[in-house]
Amino acid sequence: MDYITGFKEKDTMEISELLAEGMLGRTVKVNGAVHVIRDMGEIAFIILRKREGLLQGVYEEGITRFDLKDLREGFTVEITGTLAESDKAPNGIEIRIIEIKVLSEPAESMPLPVNKWKMPTSLEAKLNYRPISLRNIRERAKFKLQEGIVRGFRDFLYGEGFTEIHTPKIGAKSAEGGANLFRLEYFHRPAILQQSPQFYKQMMVGVYDRVFETAPVFRAEKHNTKRHLNEYTSLDFEMGYIDGFEDIMAMETGFLQYTMQLLEKEYARELQILGITLPRTDVIPAVRFDEIKQLVSEKYERKMRNPFDLEPEEEVLISQYAKEEWDADFIFVTHYPSKKRPFYAMDDPEDTRYTLSFDLLFRGMEITTGGQRIHDYHKLLEKMETRGMTEEGMEQYLSAFKYGMPPHGGLGIGMERLTMKLVGEDNVRETTLFPRDLSRLEP
Amino acid sequence: MDYITGFKEKDTMEISELLAEGMLGRTVKVNGAVHVIRDMGEIAFIILRKREGLLQGVYEEGITRFDLKDLREGFTVEITGTLAESDKAPNGIEIRIIEIKVLSEPAESMPLPVNKWKMPTSLEAKLNYRPISLRNIRERAKFKLQEGIVRGFRDFLYGEGFTEIHTPKIGAKSAEGGANLFRLEYFHRPAILQQSPQFYKQMMVGVYDRVFETAPVFRAEKHNTKRHLNEYTSLDFEMGYIDGFEDIMAMETGFLQYTMQLLEKEYARELQILGITLPRTDVIPAVRFDEIKQLVSEKYERKMRNPFDLEPEEEVLISQYAKEEWDADFIFVTHYPSKKRPFYAMDDPEDTRYTLSFDLLFRGMEITTGGQRIHDYHKLLEKMETRGMTEEGMEQYLSAFKYGMPPHGGLGIGMERLTMKLVGEDNVRETTLFPRDLSRLEP
Repeated sequence: MDYITGFKEKDTMEISELLAEGMLGRTVKVNGAVHVIRDMGEIAFIILRKREGLLQGVYEEGITRFDLKDLREGFTVEITGTLAESDKAPNGIEIRIIEIKVLSEPAESMPLPVNKWKMPTSLEAKLNYRPISLRNIRERAKFKLQEGIVRGFRDFLYGEGFTEIHTPKIGAKSAEGGANLFRLEYFHRPAILQQSPQFYKQMMVGVYDRVFETAPVFRAEKHNTKRHLNEYTSLDFEMGYIDGFEDIMAMETGFLQYTMQLLEKEYARELQILGITLPRTDVIPAVRFDEIKQLVSEKYERKMRNPFDLEPEEEVLISQYAKEEWDADFIFVTHYPSKKRPFYAMDDPEDTRYTLSFDLLFRGMEITTGGQRIHDYHKLLEKMETRGMTEEGMEQYLSAFKYGMPPHGGLGIGMERLTMKLVGEDNVRETTLFPRDLSRLEP
Repeated sequence: MDYITGFKEKDTMEISELLAEGMLGRTVKVNGAVHVIRDMGEIAFIILRKREGLLQGVYEEGITRFDLKDLREGFTVEITGTLAESDKAPNGIEIRIIEIKVLSEPAESMPLPVNKWKMPTSLEAKLNYRPISLRNIRERAKFKLQEGIVRGFRDFLYGEGFTEIHTPKIGAKSAEGGANLFRLEYFHRPAILQQSPQFYKQMMVGVYDRVFETAPVFRAEKHNTKRHLNEYTSLDFEMGYIDGFEDIMAMETGFLQYTMQLLEKEYARELQILGITLPRTDVIPAVRFDEIKQLVSEKYERKMRNPFDLEPEEEVLISQYAKEEWDADFIFVTHYPSKKRPFYAMDDPEDTRYTLSFDLLFRGMEITTGGQRIHDYHKLLEKMETRGMTEEGMEQYLSAFKYGMPPHGGLGIGMERLTMKLVGEDNVRETTLFPRDLSRLEP
């Protein structure tokens, strides 16, 4: 019998430990994957890929006790050597290698030049070799920033009194419409995959006042575009006791401000690797849907075709307008037409053709939909009736309202889209680890 | 056009703000749901349910400008009044109400006594009225602690250099076996729901060395027991450059220690509401599978029936043994038989009938399975061959190994089970917000 008491001190070091005061000149041990070998004859540079970045090792014939011919890219190793300064090496340090211990060997050499700074590889090829292409330093930096976004979302909301929830993804019916649902058999009963945690988060407002969830959602949409995924991670929150839907926009603005600060502080390395300038979040303009459509139509002499929705091209122009007129990277478009919003959206009492709702556009693309919801049981039933909906399968959702719900609202943010616009990509697959689309079920 | 600049200061207060220095005697405004009304004649106690707990309001005839008859449980309100000390009230404070503003009204009165301290309600009835029964203070406290567990998992692992990942739940094939998979149609192609992120997190070890995910998994198991769910939240991590599977157990022990401290510090209110004594995590015994089976069989005079697996009753006895012999709430059971572990588990080179793997038992139940994985491409192919598996559909997973992977291992923790054992429930549905089992697809 053994006892496990928590951490064991390891003698291998991470890059941040090597960079600490007083380490230069000392004998150190590190592990990592062999990212590049640059053989210069008498000496060779062995660049290790570690989780905190690249680390240069210097192989010297006659000093390093290892035959360089026995090492190839893709090996994982443990090296021991003397830590030294080096102007040209990553982080300004290198290890003069004394010993190399091989931990594992690849069976074949790399099918992609993952050790190039910018891989000259198509998106298609990157996705076909996803577990390998992600080993590229720039590729993996994008998903590290994605971590920062989700982390910022959660940490900010914890601080604002929200409770995290975990709601089921398999269900009997779904919140919004039926055409876009994936269907499955659940022990001989028909079931669907949830396209949103909407109903659940609303029910949970009656329990905790403020809730959030960061989880996958599923959309069986047959769109094959640069902005659609059939499975994505949705950052959802819902909050009670609001005075109006402006409270939701204020909370989202607070999240964005918090998160940009977090990225600046904790993810500076990745921002630098990708050369990213963080967007402005101090003030975000909020303009009515009909107004901004008119403004954009006039300024850019573009005919409005669909009065009830925004076309992708219009989203681009609205963002362009916001940048030119207000120096804004984000813009809230408010008061969407009722007929384009789900039944639970609260209509504007001053003009019921519009809703107390909004989208947030970021650099030309919608990344959030949100708004105030109907909280009165009878009004909710009325709205459902005008839309020809029945209560069947919605009894539990409706029960939350029957037994009392505060005024509330919320939003959903597409994690991959927000990341995509932050890092300046133009295809959402670039910022999805393993995308699911019309043709991709693997890897 | 408006500008959104972040927070608007609200004049309504939360309980923690009321408890701040210098607030007594001041006129304050709060909102909340009417949890209980105790009408004593001239005065009445109106207990509000807020996200931080209960708050007592005192209604006085002739002083409070409101007719008490117009108020019922389930209303949400905003009250204004004078903050005063009160020995018997929750948190020692109450508000002498001057005004009451109704924010929303329920259509019907509560179907369950959610305002009772302990609801005299069966699990079945609680689940049938889930959005309502969760409004009970004790019920919701369980899921607040669940939040703390997941938060502790993430925060601890961020600190240890792990990267959070989001992997797809719809897939073409799955890691482990086919009988327990939910199947669906994905644009005219057969697809499944992932029963574990195993393949993905292993692939991502090649990218970030250390990764974790907290996400739903799906198991089409036809078990109708107190410990099985068909959808649950799995806390998964996978880490590279390990010296052995002991590193995984040490990391899990570190997580448990960190999380218990977090709960003690940030979730003291919920621990107190539920009367929970936190388990001991300073040392956790680790005993071989065959040894502990023998020990338990001898001590409790119980015949071993299945030499390759633990029966639920044996898990209970092992925990009893650990408590009696070592005063331990957790126990690692190590070196599980190979034939009961998946193909990717690394066999013990000293005796290949066993694996370098473990389960963690907590108060009589398995809550974690983990271990070291095979990292060598050829050995992985060999193991697959001996099990009669083909490479079809696993090409991407295998490619990670073909192009080099460090020694690694990881684990998966059942969030609902860990919560269940922590709060002392005996049915996993008690600690699942909206359980999915053989009969439950709703709510």
